[in-house]
Amino acid sequence: MQKAQKGICGRLNVRVNIELLSISNPVHKKDLAVRLTDDTDPFFLYNLVISEEDFQSLKSQQGLLVDFSAFPQKFIDLLQQCIQEQNKDIPRFLLQLVSSASVLDHTPVSLNVVETNPFKHLTHLSLKFLPGNDAEIKKFLASCLKCLKEDKMMLEEKLRKTEEDLTRQLSYTQQ
Amino acid sequence: MQKAQKGICGRLNVRVNIELLSISNPVHKKDLAVRLTDDTDPFFLYNLVISEEDFQSLKSQQGLLVDFSAFPQKFIDLLQQCIQEQNKDIPRFLLQLVSSASVLDHTPVSLNVVETNPFKHLTHLSLKFLPGNDAEIKKFLASCLKCLKEDKMMLEEKLRKTEEDLTRQLSYTQQ
Repeated sequence: MQKAQKGICGRLNVRVNIELLSISNPVHKKDLAVRLTDDTDPFFLYNLVISEEDFQSLKSQQGLLVDFSAFPQKFIDLLQQCIQEQNKDIPRFLLQLVSSASVLDHTPVSLNVVETNPFKHLTHLSLKFLPGNDAEIKKFLASCLKCLKEDKMMLEEKLRKTEEDLTRQLSYTQQ
Repeated sequence: MQKAQKGICGRLNVRVNIELLSISNPVHKKDLAVRLTDDTDPFFLYNLVISEEDFQSLKSQQGLLVDFSAFPQKFIDLLQQCIQEQNKDIPRFLLQLVSSASVLDHTPVSLNVVETNPFKHLTHLSLKFLPGNDAEIKKFLASCLKCLKEDKMMLEEKLRKTEEDLTRQLSYTQQ
């Protein structure tokens, strides 16, 4: 991902998480939650929640032709095109993170999917994200910690089993 | 550890972390930082920082006979006495976490080391802790995540080596 700021350009490895939240109380509705994180920076967190109404204005503003239910898959397809192109010298599709501030810190950012052809840059999609506050980062880190603890326990169990299995096989073969 | 609140009693597994912080700017001074955490609750965090001056008032208030430099080891000794006694039916030393609020949430707590003899309860030490705010919890969780990631990498490496070693030994024995 290309990070474009006031005069600063660089590469970031950002993880994009897309989740469809179903809320049935008081009325049944669906929200699309998108989260940007960086595995190397625990405090990097940007959030975007798009409701069906938000999507209608996004659709008219950016001239989108898909509806809310088809949008998540279309967004994923665009991200995958960027991933496929990311190691090419001249990538046709680029994911850009643009901030109006000089430092990428506590200001909203735009995530842009940009196609570059010989003639011009075409912005396929531009989504605005808000930086996570301390409470949101705290919650996110707690969920990471939970997953990592489970991974660690599974690894310990696998190591224990591997040692046991192979030691048994070894002693059986040596007899 | 015994948790004593307004009418609520329970057992908690609290991790006590004691650290001596050396600060040399602008003047050379040492602070004792004590942290209470709970491995099963990522948002449980209580902090206490004792400077040399703080310690002087603590010493006179609680009639302590040790000086600042000897205090950390004495505190650890008291904690270890509590650990040794924790599974006994009638523990002679008890660690108590006392909150003035009905729920243990965002209010200061006191950590008491209490000796119970047939005659009375003797409080050897009482330390007041402040609950960590979102920014402090966020920082603490990020440091946990870092350690856990390192542990996981070491485990993965150990698993890889174990599989490699034992498979080699096995194929050698089978020849």
